[in-house]
Amino acid sequence: MSQGNEFHQVTEATTALNNFQQNPYGPNPADYLSNVGSFQLIDSTLREGEQFANAFFSTEKKIEIARALDDFGVDYIELTSPVASEQSLRDCQAICKLGLKAKILTHIRCHMDDAKVAVGTGVDGVDVVIGTSKFLRQYSHGKDMNYIAKSAIEVIEYVKSKGIEIRFSSEDSFRSDLVDLLNIYKTVDKIGVNRVGIADTVGCANPRQVYELVRTLKSVVSCDVECHFHNDTGCAIANAYTALEGGAKLVDVSVLGIGERNGITPLGGLMARMIVAAPDYVKSKYKLHKIRDIENLVAEAVEVNVPFNNPITGFCAFTHKAGIHAKAILANPSTYEILNPNDFGMTRYIHFANRLTGWNAIKSRVDQLNLHLTDDQVKEVTAKIKQLGDVRPLNIDDVDSIIKAFHAQIATPRVTARPANREEEINGFDLEAPPQKKTKIL
Amino acid sequence: MSQGNEFHQVTEATTALNNFQQNPYGPNPADYLSNVGSFQLIDSTLREGEQFANAFFSTEKKIEIARALDDFGVDYIELTSPVASEQSLRDCQAICKLGLKAKILTHIRCHMDDAKVAVGTGVDGVDVVIGTSKFLRQYSHGKDMNYIAKSAIEVIEYVKSKGIEIRFSSEDSFRSDLVDLLNIYKTVDKIGVNRVGIADTVGCANPRQVYELVRTLKSVVSCDVECHFHNDTGCAIANAYTALEGGAKLVDVSVLGIGERNGITPLGGLMARMIVAAPDYVKSKYKLHKIRDIENLVAEAVEVNVPFNNPITGFCAFTHKAGIHAKAILANPSTYEILNPNDFGMTRYIHFANRLTGWNAIKSRVDQLNLHLTDDQVKEVTAKIKQLGDVRPLNIDDVDSIIKAFHAQIATPRVTARPANREEEINGFDLEAPPQKKTKIL
Repeated sequence: MSQGNEFHQVTEATTALNNFQQNPYGPNPADYLSNVGSFQLIDSTLREGEQFANAFFSTEKKIEIARALDDFGVDYIELTSPVASEQSLRDCQAICKLGLKAKILTHIRCHMDDAKVAVGTGVDGVDVVIGTSKFLRQYSHGKDMNYIAKSAIEVIEYVKSKGIEIRFSSEDSFRSDLVDLLNIYKTVDKIGVNRVGIADTVGCANPRQVYELVRTLKSVVSCDVECHFHNDTGCAIANAYTALEGGAKLVDVSVLGIGERNGITPLGGLMARMIVAAPDYVKSKYKLHKIRDIENLVAEAVEVNVPFNNPITGFCAFTHKAGIHAKAILANPSTYEILNPNDFGMTRYIHFANRLTGWNAIKSRVDQLNLHLTDDQVKEVTAKIKQLGDVRPLNIDDVDSIIKAFHAQIATPRVTARPANREEEINGFDLEAPPQKKTKIL
Repeated sequence: MSQGNEFHQVTEATTALNNFQQNPYGPNPADYLSNVGSFQLIDSTLREGEQFANAFFSTEKKIEIARALDDFGVDYIELTSPVASEQSLRDCQAICKLGLKAKILTHIRCHMDDAKVAVGTGVDGVDVVIGTSKFLRQYSHGKDMNYIAKSAIEVIEYVKSKGIEIRFSSEDSFRSDLVDLLNIYKTVDKIGVNRVGIADTVGCANPRQVYELVRTLKSVVSCDVECHFHNDTGCAIANAYTALEGGAKLVDVSVLGIGERNGITPLGGLMARMIVAAPDYVKSKYKLHKIRDIENLVAEAVEVNVPFNNPITGFCAFTHKAGIHAKAILANPSTYEILNPNDFGMTRYIHFANRLTGWNAIKSRVDQLNLHLTDDQVKEVTAKIKQLGDVRPLNIDDVDSIIKAFHAQIATPRVTARPANREEEINGFDLEAPPQKKTKIL
């Protein structure tokens, strides 16, 4: 085997990994503008989320959600425009009076009429938006870039005169002309907005496009950059992450990503992404163990189920099934986990009651049952379990019955099995089937 | 307004956009190795998907799923290792005999024992995998890179001698030493594998990392590159897309993304991403209108609901709600859609029965009801609808009642309303509330 010697550097490579002081998934040093370790969250569940098909939030529910988000630690809470309806105005006023730590924003069209109502509600800032793409200029408001600039300057100067924060965002930024975009952003930056926003309103952007646009924008403006990504093509989390790498500072999120169509960057999913890159920052700033409660609160309010495959809180997000995975997880959870379920108040499961199971997982179950079998005996009983698993779905009782019957055959009469305690933990996690999700098929 | 003249280039920019012959969302010309317009799909629902916590597929169900995937047009179907259980072996043999257009693969450990069973099943190719990260080498198989190389060469030469395809993949590639990785890939490429695979087994990778690794790998090997991304941090679709930009050719997917933990790149979500970038290729190669049926088939088999926010098939993926969105969509759907629901056999909805509605959406409903109101009258009735929408969730009947009552007040006795026909279409889409999803909250 002549190629053999090419692989002798294994030991050195391993040592290098052990000595690696920085987080290898942390900010890339080449991204000198990166805010991966210093980002802020603008939660828009009560604005973008209200545009979700199923959303109807009563005043009480809005307040409950706002308090939960504030407790979690989001930096800003964005509310529906007070000109959308009379109750929207009253709700905005009510939430401003709660005295939350999070700053309260409202989201308006680029009109003086809207701005005047917004500043009267007591918000800490106003998010102004106007469509800049050819599509929106032609079919939505029908205005050209000169008109947009004039309106923006008027609204921004008015809001600034009231001493509160102001953001100017283009809408449909990724289908807008780049020169138009940079012109308008440069103009509003000179007037002194707190931040400019880019919005992938239709969900067409891909990560490297996002990185390029944000980097370019950061070379033109001195204010912060906010980003807003729809999820039509499944890239909303990745796009937000890549925007932070490129120098964006603030990410718009909503609980479970609810919003127009299939929504935007989800709060929980973004936390999964960010904790890998900036664990200390994320864990010290946000109450991650509250994610599940907040998602359940919002899911119930808008009458949806938390998706089975949701990051972090999906019912099997920390369930390991294949024999080869289970074996390694039993030795060291980091083998097949980049997220630690404990960080989110969640539990790790080994799913051993199936035909893909391996003898290492079954051996752990045998130990948990306080039975005593040799490795060869465990391999034998594993084969029996896999045989039944070929015929039908298994549950824990099936597996335990097979193990106990096998043990009874070979054990001396004096050895008696201790009843299984499902809450029992080995190596800090539950060795059992996960909570099976038996949902109605719609 | 001194800045005014900075925006006179609007007309030219618009013209430039109109004259733009290429798809602006297509492959980036700088990605000279890009396979965005020539990618292939390896569907792993019957391998990775079988590792999903809820999955137990009978032989009949496996065959039904394999036939559906073949009809859809996937290039490869990957099956569970025939050494996982006796039924796994028989199922593999049965699916090989179906005579599908898609090539059948099975996925094995890098052992001669496994390889001998695999080549005897009748598969068109074998996917070999071995862990190369420090974590997996220490806690899973306990072997060093020399041993890995020796095993790989033995298995690859054996499978090649049988005249079928062979892929060699590292596992946990993004936590493996880069020099080790490039060494092993270069070695197996020289022997003549059909493709090498990179796998983000724990879901830690981010798009720009993926791009860099694939570009580097493509400079070392001459064979095709396959990629496999887990979705723990929500980037599996974006990572797959970016891998194609960097020169990967094949993407592992599963229906609804089912797999270990919260799964991998989903078939449907990737199609949403790819149709934006390579519409002609995607539409000519894959039967996109079958996605909904395939997802329903698999969702039922593994007892989950299709996530409410699933790309394409989520119940509100093509529902537009906010007044400003509805207005523009009525004028031109491309304003707020990058995906055309018709491409997937889906329907577009305008959700007008809510407090965020606008008078343009209500005017369309008035027209649909064959009533006649002036714009000012429509604005007046819209205000009434928004008032009720502030108090409680609305349905279409609520809105129609308000419109008809308002019309009755102002109309002459001779004008009678035609009964509403909910199937009626305006501008090619349904102007109605979407099918409300009233699911049990678990």
